[in-house]
Amino acid sequence: MKIYDISMTIHEDMIVYKDKEEKRPHFNNKANYINADYYDTDLYMNLHTGTHFDAPLHMVKDGQTMEGYKLEKFITDVKVFNLEHLNNKITKEDLLSYDIKAGDFILLKTKNSYDTTFNFDFIYLDQSGAQYLAERSIIGVGIDALGIERAQPEHETHKVLLRRGIMILEGLTLKEVEEGGYLMIALPLKIKNVEAAPTRAVLVENL
Amino acid sequence: MKIYDISMTIHEDMIVYKDKEEKRPHFNNKANYINADYYDTDLYMNLHTGTHFDAPLHMVKDGQTMEGYKLEKFITDVKVFNLEHLNNKITKEDLLSYDIKAGDFILLKTKNSYDTTFNFDFIYLDQSGAQYLAERSIIGVGIDALGIERAQPEHETHKVLLRRGIMILEGLTLKEVEEGGYLMIALPLKIKNVEAAPTRAVLVENL
Repeated sequence: MKIYDISMTIHEDMIVYKDKEEKRPHFNNKANYINADYYDTDLYMNLHTGTHFDAPLHMVKDGQTMEGYKLEKFITDVKVFNLEHLNNKITKEDLLSYDIKAGDFILLKTKNSYDTTFNFDFIYLDQSGAQYLAERSIIGVGIDALGIERAQPEHETHKVLLRRGIMILEGLTLKEVEEGGYLMIALPLKIKNVEAAPTRAVLVENL
Repeated sequence: MKIYDISMTIHEDMIVYKDKEEKRPHFNNKANYINADYYDTDLYMNLHTGTHFDAPLHMVKDGQTMEGYKLEKFITDVKVFNLEHLNNKITKEDLLSYDIKAGDFILLKTKNSYDTTFNFDFIYLDQSGAQYLAERSIIGVGIDALGIERAQPEHETHKVLLRRGIMILEGLTLKEVEEGGYLMIALPLKIKNVEAAPTRAVLVENL
């Protein structure tokens, strides 16, 4: 069994969306071996920090919270597509050559995986690509950027996917992962009544 | 494949250790459909909230952080022991009848799993039990309480286990789970340089 960790590391200097300070996680170490006989820390974080699932409520009024995603779907076969050659966005055209079936969970590997700072021109899935994936009846899509879209009015990509209950997994790191099929285990924190959840995600070969 | 979710749900009214207010998670909903066209939330939480791993640093000065636990160990066979008949603590005596081998990961199911409020007299693993498990060279132990010990001076149970790098998984809910063998997937958030990490944990039958 070989395991790939496709999760971002959470720390105060990590990449955050658009470099916004309010998106940066903060730690509050309350006990350590100077003031106590144990070590204890609090964490303040946006729910969209690092690797995370978006639930419909994030972009759809009255949309479902994380509870809307079935537990079983967090352990799923995935197909990784290597789209590192693209320089701007992922369109329907870029996806046509791939075998995409109903029930698939697709991971989009782009050159984003090599970014070491926030890239305001990150590669995203455009509306035509989202529409195409939705028509193929996929169950989920992941990308190696903190957003699955940018610079689209009305958040079209999110809405096309989330209105159909298609899971969105953002903030993956896929540098070490080759195109192909894997078992993905992507377990979000079990948080009640929220629009997103921080997630640890791994890919497994030959479980 | 049948999956049991053995994770506590994180919300503001959840059970927190000793009912301490500073242990209670808080949500800050910054955007919603009244003030924006999307929904966005921050979470403030202690790293020992709900289901979580303790790393050695939590109770051992200069102990390892979460990075000390190998990724592969978060996906592991486990043995669930039903100890619901116990009324105070789990001792070596209580464990002697079980088959425990080197490399095992043991989950201790007690009547704690039925608590609906914080029980100051929760069932814990005492030092003799921890010492016995350590001598058997287990790799990890989980329990259905927010602490693996209480009311022991010097945190002996934690120290016996953590000094040997034995993983401690706290805050499980095992009510629905029968004694026996399972595959456990317990993925902690990937947080840098900390003494514990919130975790989503599931048991799988027949993957």
